[in-house]
Amino acid sequence: MNILVINPNSSTEMTDHLRVVLTGIKRVDTNLTVVPTKGAPAAIESACDVASATIPMLELIRKANEEDHHAIILACFADPGLEAAREVSNALVLGIQQTSLHVAAMLGHRFTVLTMTSSRVPAKEQDIRRFKLESSLASVRPLGLSVAEIEAQPERTEEQIRRVSRLAVEEDGAEVIVLGCAGMAGYARDVERELGIVVLDPSAVTLKVCEALLDLGVRQSKKGLYATPPH
Amino acid sequence: MNILVINPNSSTEMTDHLRVVLTGIKRVDTNLTVVPTKGAPAAIESACDVASATIPMLELIRKANEEDHHAIILACFADPGLEAAREVSNALVLGIQQTSLHVAAMLGHRFTVLTMTSSRVPAKEQDIRRFKLESSLASVRPLGLSVAEIEAQPERTEEQIRRVSRLAVEEDGAEVIVLGCAGMAGYARDVERELGIVVLDPSAVTLKVCEALLDLGVRQSKKGLYATPPH
Amino acid sequence: MNILVINPNSSTEMTDHLRVVLTGIKRVDTNLTVVPTKGAPAAIESACDVASATIPMLELIRKANEEDHHAIILACFADPGLEAAREVSNALVLGIQQTSLHVAAMLGHRFTVLTMTSSRVPAKEQDIRRFKLESSLASVRPLGLSVAEIEAQPERTEEQIRRVSRLAVEEDGAEVIVLGCAGMAGYARDVERELGIVVLDPSAVTLKVCEALLDLGVRQSKKGLYATPPH
Amino acid sequence: MNILVINPNSSTEMTDHLRVVLTGIKRVDTNLTVVPTKGAPAAIESACDVASATIPMLELIRKANEEDHHAIILACFADPGLEAAREVSNALVLGIQQTSLHVAAMLGHRFTVLTMTSSRVPAKEQDIRRFKLESSLASVRPLGLSVAEIEAQPERTEEQIRRVSRLAVEEDGAEVIVLGCAGMAGYARDVERELGIVVLDPSAVTLKVCEALLDLGVRQSKKGLYATPPH
Amino acid sequence: MNILVINPNSSTEMTDHLRVVLTGIKRVDTNLTVVPTKGAPAAIESACDVASATIPMLELIRKANEEDHHAIILACFADPGLEAAREVSNALVLGIQQTSLHVAAMLGHRFTVLTMTSSRVPAKEQDIRRFKLESSLASVRPLGLSVAEIEAQPERTEEQIRRVSRLAVEEDGAEVIVLGCAGMAGYARDVERELGIVVLDPSAVTLKVCEALLDLGVRQSKKGLYATPPH
Amino acid sequence: MNILVINPNSSTEMTDHLRVVLTGIKRVDTNLTVVPTKGAPAAIESACDVASATIPMLELIRKANEEDHHAIILACFADPGLEAAREVSNALVLGIQQTSLHVAAMLGHRFTVLTMTSSRVPAKEQDIRRFKLESSLASVRPLGLSVAEIEAQPERTEEQIRRVSRLAVEEDGAEVIVLGCAGMAGYARDVERELGIVVLDPSAVTLKVCEALLDLGVRQSKKGLYATPPH
Repeated sequence: MNILVINPNSSTEMTDHLRVVLTGIKRVDTNLTVVPTKGAPAAIESACDVASATIPMLELIRKANEEDHHAIILACFADPGLEAAREVSNALVLGIQQTSLHVAAMLGHRFTVLTMTSSRVPAKEQDIRRFKLESSLASVRPLGLSVAEIEAQPERTEEQIRRVSRLAVEEDGAEVIVLGCAGMAGYARDVERELGIVVLDPSAVTLKVCEALLDLGVRQSKKGLYATPPH
Repeated sequence: MNILVINPNSSTEMTDHLRVVLTGIKRVDTNLTVVPTKGAPAAIESACDVASATIPMLELIRKANEEDHHAIILACFADPGLEAAREVSNALVLGIQQTSLHVAAMLGHRFTVLTMTSSRVPAKEQDIRRFKLESSLASVRPLGLSVAEIEAQPERTEEQIRRVSRLAVEEDGAEVIVLGCAGMAGYARDVERELGIVVLDPSAVTLKVCEALLDLGVRQSKKGLYATPPH
Repeated sequence: MNILVINPNSSTEMTDHLRVVLTGIKRVDTNLTVVPTKGAPAAIESACDVASATIPMLELIRKANEEDHHAIILACFADPGLEAAREVSNALVLGIQQTSLHVAAMLGHRFTVLTMTSSRVPAKEQDIRRFKLESSLASVRPLGLSVAEIEAQPERTEEQIRRVSRLAVEEDGAEVIVLGCAGMAGYARDVERELGIVVLDPSAVTLKVCEALLDLGVRQSKKGLYATPPH
Repeated sequence: MNILVINPNSSTEMTDHLRVVLTGIKRVDTNLTVVPTKGAPAAIESACDVASATIPMLELIRKANEEDHHAIILACFADPGLEAAREVSNALVLGIQQTSLHVAAMLGHRFTVLTMTSSRVPAKEQDIRRFKLESSLASVRPLGLSVAEIEAQPERTEEQIRRVSRLAVEEDGAEVIVLGCAGMAGYARDVERELGIVVLDPSAVTLKVCEALLDLGVRQSKKGLYATPPH
Repeated sequence: MNILVINPNSSTEMTDHLRVVLTGIKRVDTNLTVVPTKGAPAAIESACDVASATIPMLELIRKANEEDHHAIILACFADPGLEAAREVSNALVLGIQQTSLHVAAMLGHRFTVLTMTSSRVPAKEQDIRRFKLESSLASVRPLGLSVAEIEAQPERTEEQIRRVSRLAVEEDGAEVIVLGCAGMAGYARDVERELGIVVLDPSAVTLKVCEALLDLGVRQSKKGLYATPPH
Repeated sequence: MNILVINPNSSTEMTDHLRVVLTGIKRVDTNLTVVPTKGAPAAIESACDVASATIPMLELIRKANEEDHHAIILACFADPGLEAAREVSNALVLGIQQTSLHVAAMLGHRFTVLTMTSSRVPAKEQDIRRFKLESSLASVRPLGLSVAEIEAQPERTEEQIRRVSRLAVEEDGAEVIVLGCAGMAGYARDVERELGIVVLDPSAVTLKVCEALLDLGVRQSKKGLYATPPH
């Protein structure tokens, strides 16, 4: 099966990192193509960034329709342009936020989403409404670190993920933690072990669910919300 | 007060029509500038169209920051890019869907949104969740007419608006009807009189609410969801 | 346009104050009549007070039907008797709580209502359900001051509004503050500036929305919840 | 135990009928006083009627505080002034709507409320939100009969209750029917037998629950929503 | 009236205690039979325990169908097997959790459930969804005591109930406390007096509601969720 | 990876059929063990059946803890004893209802669950609340066929699935259909093609998601709702 992973930002470092991580966990019968989105912002941290990323990302998806991809993964936790991508594509399209939140809701009573800074909290809460999962939400909690800080300071990042996850468990009743930023991914296993809960890396979760859905031969319903636009 | 009305599609006919209608109801102390969005689709009928319209619309808004506008109205019922526009703008930004749905919820127990075709119903339902007004929703009902048909066949359009509004009142308990497409606007008063309910034209409602909010000196909260992005 | 503002309590001081404030912001083409409600309690601080205020207020509204008012504003944050007033009146009737909560929900992701004492919190929460806006609620927070203290101690009041608003922003994620008591109105602008959020004075908001809706020629739907009673 | 049953309207016929029915089912250790509300409307069919009934009803309750009543039942399905009555009274106060809706929600997955005419449906829906039971609601269905018709035409009334209840079961999934008007009470048992569901007469249900709560020695919480007003 | 009270665990001590308490408050015309469930766990503290208790409890209920019981009360706060019991029984079946939560929601704006340890909190939250009462929930709060500790340390238990109830009132806005464990029952009156709120002992509440519903001649609806299984 | 599929009923025919279907779609690196539940009912059509199936099923799970299974799938659409099974098991445990409903909610705006007879509808609605997915629900629709009829009459079954699915799409806005009974599974692809929507066979979906989650190395959170019971 051929899966196109689109990193909706333009960062080649992040794309390379994503390729390494996903290649490490993909099935042997999975062919991965991992690409950045030229023309998109280097990081997606606002509704403006989402809009800016969506247009070149949709170009990639239109081009992909003429190629031989069985599925497309949008690998940014904002799920930018997910609905539009599903309209345009003839293939299965998954966003890493929607997919990982559903898996989180399957594996525990309530989940907490970790985000970077407090300014991102309301946008995450809106996204959880967009996916109709607010009844499973324990909380959205910020690390208090920017994308740049997360990349530059691994120890401080690890410390913060551990500290904030513990607060989510103790004060909000979280049973599952969703790491709402690519830079947080590497720290999942340690926190999981230490706190005795589940910690999800959305990109990894989505690749695996994508392989599963391709085995089943399903894609998004093309009747209704994701119908192919007439023109 | 100077209000910039952006028609997020590229149609100059619609823009001209909008200018005529809004000029007819604006206050004397209101200066209106009504512009189309060059580079946007001619009509906005899908999530893809929303994405395509948002980028050139945001350009207009960035430019507007250097001009002397006190408020900006996005005059398409999909409220395309409303969140991004509010991030970018230093002025009050209103979308005609959000504004008219809140006014509808003020004026009756439950409202029905009329949309064009049945394929638009799920997107409208999602928008109503986006604005957290689902408890005030009676129904979303399609006219079964395309934008082109609405423009070309006024009698059939009027007949359908009347017929579907009556069904919304009798079967869904609607007390207010929101005309979810610019082409439906001219028929509000007749249906209102005939059915004894309130029928709202979102552009008109939003212009008036905009003038009111400018008098008050408020704009969207710039702390949180609509905070100005750092870069 | 002729707008009758009914202060649903009997206090002439509050009524005079309200007249001054609203006169200062009304449009030049607006004729305001601001009256107290004789026979109502001096302040409205309980469900009993609401009931006591409603009867003489409805008398004023019945009388207004024979006069030349285009709209009526009920200027008490409990919106006492709003549904009954809308049944009785032939004119547009607005309550300052319902109107300002909808405007608050338009301008930010979530709002906090400031009330006087902790004993009023559950009644405010019930009101927010009455208006179906609980999904937009950040919190109801008491100042810990009685109406009398708010009137007598402006400095302490200002200090408390600032302090409690800051807590609402930092702990509850409020992006908009609604000042749920007439005596708090004068302090809006300072807090707004200091905290970088929106602070709404419900009476002022409602006067402006009222002018806007009169321009549009709409009133509450008279089919359904607000239908004129048969007798 | 002494229970004061207040019929919040002024009809002595209804009051007499209520006295007969409740006396027939009361416990031997229950002393019932059933009184009409002088000065209230003859029937309560609007928010205005609710307001008009509340004031003289509250007078009865204040007077009752000086007498020897252990509980008060407000025997009108609108539960007029329930919150105010609970503030004022030192005794347990129950409304027949709130009480019977909770019992309905205990006895089946979803309930339907029968009301008189379609114009009452939105007010009933609002009441169900007031009592936070909307998740247990199957539907509110009108009989299409006025209070006068219900009293004058018993056969037509019985026929309509049967027909509408059957629709509620078959189309809305109702498992319990709540008879939302005193005049419907006599027909409960027959419909219950015929349809194999539960049909509740709110006055009867509430008298029995009232006796039960008096045995327990509880009343409404006087901390919070129902706190005794300071003055 | 003959009421069978089934203690769904196998503890004869708890059963004896329950018999004493309920006998002390039953009506003189009520015949109580209080039995433990042989073969059930000694205490019910997990979903496994619920499953284990349900089978022998259903046996008791099937046997009861051949005896002369008018109602059955399941006297464990988890309401184990309530839906199955209602399917099987020809009599009224009440669970002490569902019944007391509805009474709690009647008597105050929001209620708090006290449970034993923090590990039980999510199961209680799930139960409150099962009964569709989440809008009336203030919080679920653990005492931090095991069943064994509650039995062995009455003073510490009383102290914890008082302390945690106070936090529920002050921090969560609770107006009613539901004692979510049989061992907590004896302390209700003192806390009630001290905090000025309502504190409910679920077994006692349910016995009284059961007597009331038997007087009315109703049981659970046997159409729909609780229909008698075909075989 | 070793996956134990437990058919929670005792039917060897169903178990054999399930083994054939799942073996046909499993990955080559998946070892499947598919077993019936001795001592469970032959079919699970009530809350009683759920209870009866749970005990012997939990026995299988306890035994499985001593064997070498990486995951357990409960292959009955009622998800009987899912919470208890997750408490007891050291392995990942998935129920086919919860898993397929989450996948349905990922792939379309709203889903419809097909069930056998109308008497099962309320239990399915309760299950959807149990999994907190009611906001994604279009409807639960019965086929009007018993398990026996579904097995004996394939043509009538196919015809009913097609007819009812079409109604779900046209009247309820369903974009995804979930086949809520094992006997319906074989008809998914045809209906899918004909109606242009997604039709999910829960067992197949769950096997694939299970393989995906095992690749990820996650299981249900063992902190909170699914914590291992102390004894």
